[in-house]
Amino acid sequence: MLDVTLAGCGGTIPLKSRWLTSCMMRYNGKCLLIDCGEGTQIAMKEASLPFKPLGIICLTHYHADHISGLPGLLLSMGGEGRTDPVIIIGPGNVQRYISSLLIIAPELPFEVICVPINEKVETFAFDGFNITAFHVNHTMTCYGYTIEIPRAGKFDPERARQNGVPLRVWNKLQKTPSVEYEGTTYTQDMVMGPPRRGIKVTYCTDTRPVPIISAQASGCDLFICEGMYGDEDKAGRARESRHMTFSEAASLAAAAPIKPRRMWLTHYSPSMPDPEAYIGEAKAIFPDAICGRDGMSETIRFDNE
Amino acid sequence: MLDVTLAGCGGTIPLKSRWLTSCMMRYNGKCLLIDCGEGTQIAMKEASLPFKPLGIICLTHYHADHISGLPGLLLSMGGEGRTDPVIIIGPGNVQRYISSLLIIAPELPFEVICVPINEKVETFAFDGFNITAFHVNHTMTCYGYTIEIPRAGKFDPERARQNGVPLRVWNKLQKTPSVEYEGTTYTQDMVMGPPRRGIKVTYCTDTRPVPIISAQASGCDLFICEGMYGDEDKAGRARESRHMTFSEAASLAAAAPIKPRRMWLTHYSPSMPDPEAYIGEAKAIFPDAICGRDGMSETIRFDNE
Repeated sequence: MLDVTLAGCGGTIPLKSRWLTSCMMRYNGKCLLIDCGEGTQIAMKEASLPFKPLGIICLTHYHADHISGLPGLLLSMGGEGRTDPVIIIGPGNVQRYISSLLIIAPELPFEVICVPINEKVETFAFDGFNITAFHVNHTMTCYGYTIEIPRAGKFDPERARQNGVPLRVWNKLQKTPSVEYEGTTYTQDMVMGPPRRGIKVTYCTDTRPVPIISAQASGCDLFICEGMYGDEDKAGRARESRHMTFSEAASLAAAAPIKPRRMWLTHYSPSMPDPEAYIGEAKAIFPDAICGRDGMSETIRFDNE
Repeated sequence: MLDVTLAGCGGTIPLKSRWLTSCMMRYNGKCLLIDCGEGTQIAMKEASLPFKPLGIICLTHYHADHISGLPGLLLSMGGEGRTDPVIIIGPGNVQRYISSLLIIAPELPFEVICVPINEKVETFAFDGFNITAFHVNHTMTCYGYTIEIPRAGKFDPERARQNGVPLRVWNKLQKTPSVEYEGTTYTQDMVMGPPRRGIKVTYCTDTRPVPIISAQASGCDLFICEGMYGDEDKAGRARESRHMTFSEAASLAAAAPIKPRRMWLTHYSPSMPDPEAYIGEAKAIFPDAICGRDGMSETIRFDNE
C-alpha cells in the first residue's frame, strides 16, 4: 500500500492558512517527496510526516515556491539523524540549483545525489518507486511525475508444473529473477502469473493543459493536478501565467484514455481563499474531483489487498 | 517613534507554533528587518508587517535559520510592488550568499545592494536608521546590531540671537545643516541646542556572552538578546553550540554601563516548549527581562514625546 499526503496545497506564496504545494508518498518504509517550497518542513510536521526516511525528492521546476524550503528540510533531515544518501531529481542542471542553495547548508551528514531529467519523458526507479517524469508547459521548464508501485503476478503452481520447475526452487524463484538448479536455469516467469495492476499516482502542477498529462494520468488511482483558479473569469489569467482553471484540470482527467479513479486539485492562487466554492466547475466535468487541502492523506491499496 | 516587532522567536528550526527569530523596526514609513529564516514572510503577515516599505535587511550570519526565507520574502516584496532598491547588510562576502540564493529569484523588480561588514565594529546610516554592526562569538562569523534613531537638539532662539543669526534663516536652518544668507554661512549648531537622547535598540542572537554586547546595549531602550536555553542544566550545551542561557543573557544586560530600559529574550531552542517557565532565571539577574514571543510589538517614543 502507498500512503499519499498533500502537505500543502498553495501556489506562489505561503499563506498563514495554506502551505505551499508539496506531496509525500510513503511505501514500504521509504519516502518520496514532490517539491519543497518555503515552510514545507513545517507542513510535514503538521501532517506528522517523517523526515529521516525521506530518500527521494522530485522537483517539478525551480520557481521559489517549489524549492525554497529545500535547505531547511535537508538540515532538519540531518538533525533527525539521516545519514543515507538523498536523491534529488529535477529538470536540466539540477546540480547547479542544489549547489547554489546549499551554500547555507554546507555540512549535511549525508550525500546529496542530483539526478537530471534531460528528455521529454524519462523514467527512474529508486527505493521501490517507479518514477516517470514528463515535460509539461509552464513559464520555465517544468515536469509532472507519475509514481508507480509495480505488483508482481501471483505464484501459479500449475504453471510451475507445466514448465517442469522442480518443487525445490519454487519458493526461491518467487523472490529472485532466476535460479540455477542441477545445471538448469529457471526464470521467475516460469512460476508466476502475469504482473498484476499496481498502484499509480500522477502529479502535475504549474502547467497549461497538455495532452501528455491525460496520457500519464490514464488508469491512475489518484490524479493530483494544479487548479490555480476556480473562477472561470480567471481563464485569461491562467493562460497568461501558464496555469490552469479547475475546469481545465478536470478536462484533463476526463480526457484520459482510462479515467483516473479520483482527482485532487491543488496549487491554489493566494487570490482564492475558498477553493471549495468552485469545486462544482470541476465536478461538472469530472465527478471524482475534490479539492485538496493541507494534510489531506489517503492510503492506496493494491486491488483485492 | 520606532515600532519594534519580533516576527518570530525560535532558533534552529521553524516550528508549527514558533517562527524563526527575526525582528522588524519601522520608523518614519521606512522598515528595517534583522534576519529572515524560513517562514519569516508568513510570520510578518501574521504580525501585519508590511512588505513594500522594507528597504534594509541586516543579516547576523549565514546559518539557514537566519537567511533561508530571503528569496521568498524578496519575491513577495516584488509581488507587492516594490521597485526601490533593497540594501542587504551582512558579514564578509554577503554578495556571494545573496547571489547564490537568488538563483531561485532571478528576476526581482528592484535592485539588491549588498553591503559587507568587514570590521569588528562598523556603522552605516540608511533611511533614517543609524546602524552599528558589532562582531560577536558564534560557530561562524556573526554580528549583533544596534539600531539608533538620532534626535536633534531643540531649536533655541536665545542661542540663535546670541550667534547673530538673522530671523529670516531661523526656520530653514532647523532643517538643513547650513544656510548661505547675504554672503554669510550660518550652521545648524548656531540655532539648535545639543542633540537629545534618541531611540536605541540593541539586538543579538547566536553568540556566547562577550563584553561588546553589554557595551552596545548600554543605555538602550530595548535589548533583544538570544536565550537559547532557559534551564541552567543546559549551560554546557549552550557553551558547545555557542549560544547562551537565560541567565547568561540577563547578565549581559546587568553588566551594561547604563542599564537597558528593558530586555526581550528570543531565539529559543526547539527543545524548550515553554520559555516562560524559566523567566525567573533571567529576572533574578535583570528584573526588566521578559520572554519575547511571536508578534510581540512595542512602540518606542522619544523621551517626553
